Amino acid sequence: MAETNLQVLLRRRPVGAPVPEDFEIVETPVPTPGPGEVLVRARFLSLDPYMRGRMSEAKSYAQPVPLGGVMEGQTAGEVVASNAPGFAPGDTVLGGSGWQRFSCVTPARLFKIDPGEAPLSASLGVLGMPGLTAWVGLEDIGTPKAGETVVVSAASGAVGQVAGQIAKIRGCTVVGVAGGEKKCRFVTEELGFDACIDHRGDLRAGFDVHCPGGIDVYWENVGGDVQREVFPRMNDFGRMVMCGMIAEYNDTQVRPGPNLMAVVRKRLRIQGFIVSDNGWPRYPQFRREMVGWMKEGRMQWREDVVDGLRRAPEAFIGLLKGENFGKLVVRIG
Amino acid sequence: MAETNLQVLLRRRPVGAPVPEDFEIVETPVPTPGPGEVLVRARFLSLDPYMRGRMSEAKSYAQPVPLGGVMEGQTAGEVVASNAPGFAPGDTVLGGSGWQRFSCVTPARLFKIDPGEAPLSASLGVLGMPGLTAWVGLEDIGTPKAGETVVVSAASGAVGQVAGQIAKIRGCTVVGVAGGEKKCRFVTEELGFDACIDHRGDLRAGFDVHCPGGIDVYWENVGGDVQREVFPRMNDFGRMVMCGMIAEYNDTQVRPGPNLMAVVRKRLRIQGFIVSDNGWPRYPQFRREMVGWMKEGRMQWREDVVDGLRRAPEAFIGLLKGENFGKLVVRIG
Repeated sequence: MAETNLQVLLRRRPVGAPVPEDFEIVETPVPTPGPGEVLVRARFLSLDPYMRGRMSEAKSYAQPVPLGGVMEGQTAGEVVASNAPGFAPGDTVLGGSGWQRFSCVTPARLFKIDPGEAPLSASLGVLGMPGLTAWVGLEDIGTPKAGETVVVSAASGAVGQVAGQIAKIRGCTVVGVAGGEKKCRFVTEELGFDACIDHRGDLRAGFDVHCPGGIDVYWENVGGDVQREVFPRMNDFGRMVMCGMIAEYNDTQVRPGPNLMAVVRKRLRIQGFIVSDNGWPRYPQFRREMVGWMKEGRMQWREDVVDGLRRAPEAFIGLLKGENFGKLVVRIG
Repeated sequence: MAETNLQVLLRRRPVGAPVPEDFEIVETPVPTPGPGEVLVRARFLSLDPYMRGRMSEAKSYAQPVPLGGVMEGQTAGEVVASNAPGFAPGDTVLGGSGWQRFSCVTPARLFKIDPGEAPLSASLGVLGMPGLTAWVGLEDIGTPKAGETVVVSAASGAVGQVAGQIAKIRGCTVVGVAGGEKKCRFVTEELGFDACIDHRGDLRAGFDVHCPGGIDVYWENVGGDVQREVFPRMNDFGRMVMCGMIAEYNDTQVRPGPNLMAVVRKRLRIQGFIVSDNGWPRYPQFRREMVGWMKEGRMQWREDVVDGLRRAPEAFIGLLKGENFGKLVVRIG
């Protein structure tokens, strides 16, 4: 029996939190690569919060997924057939193939990676887009200096765990924020953060205890209550690396934000960035540095692996509720 | 009859808008310079919105003026006596002498200036702290590029008029915001901005007409309604140069600010700065460039001159209400 392709499509645009009925799973024929294209078989799919934005029609930094289109996403897998120079069957590749088993992609969207450096799924997390995001955001905006206090929200998540560990390597005091005792323990005991505040508990008391000297760098992944608690604690010349605000992605009404007078008074820098703007050309440099830290045992990571592409929608819905524990990836059978 | 010193002191801390009774005017003996000090006679005093902050006890980037202390401020004047090398009687100087006729200052706070380059009062405006503020903020944060749309609030004010003209020199489309028809006409006809929106009129319609392609750089001097109207119009990669929020300085309750999700989505940079942090070491470079523009006729400026130090309190109170027209300075008799 010939293999078939399996695809997850966007059936309708969610209002508020996505539900399983917003997705459609279809079996289709394996596509044939056109001139200059590479046929890739995905082994792992990355699930990331930004995908919620692609499901909406609202203006954003990227085009929304069209209704009936394949959901977007990074995958790691191997080349099955190639009409492109530089790629041959059996090559291990990282690329933006979407929520599907087989895809035809152009080399501009593919990185050939060394499968011996790390487990394949790591190239979707610590060595992938989330890791690159953490590295670029600290490099360009956070610029943490030894002795500074860095707060990382969603600290056990894909980006947060890397951001915090890089800040530790840079000599900072690093305080995470995560949901629940289990995640907080992981953040301090396995990732080596100095402390972790449970956002299900008393946020105010947590910051009072762990950030008595204020905050120099805030890595923003969540928005909402955590942002409200952090903002007035920013020190003079503090930087807020605005990576995401997952706590507000499903909001149907816009919450008010902080009054910006403190930005003048304290000379704060609040800056957003998207890794795809200028991150990927630096991927080789990032990967070299990160593989080095991994080999030295200075970079830990945790994955939450879900088996089977058919389970991607429910796993993604859970991700938006914080149900995953570590970088969420789907193993594609 | 020997000359006396005239000083304006902070009598009490205002709640909301300052009133004349918050100040006290006293005559005192002319001070004698100590070792290493210079006795300066001020000819002009600069009045600037930041002074409202110094009147409050609230934590800020600078120490508040103590109760009973001389109000802080920049002055231009001449050296009367000097115990410091490099300064001699008759030298023209720019410094932070405060709201008083005579003061003893250390050379670290004094710049010797060439009185032939421009009228003395200009060194408190276009060639002084406000001009330097505009130059540094655009250099470090705004980074306007040819073809971009730049919006400058308080456009006819001391900082705004310079910021907008520098942006014009850099090849931008520059839209000012000012209060009243007279100021708006000045901004377009004399300063050469492309348009000016009257904030007493229909702000929304004004921006619809004059910024149809959105805003790339916003020079923030005012906060309040203008900020609320500007924020959603910021383009991708837009920069907000957070210089001041005069419309909110007298607020006794904090207004909510913009939701920061757009900062992520559009990769905005919102950054505050204070010229005294790192501006003065660049004063000579700034002054050279600015004097060049003045000589080429590319830099216009307008001053609002009030006669007599005794009138400084009422002039300052009016400044916070937008009653001045151009850079507000006091001529000291």
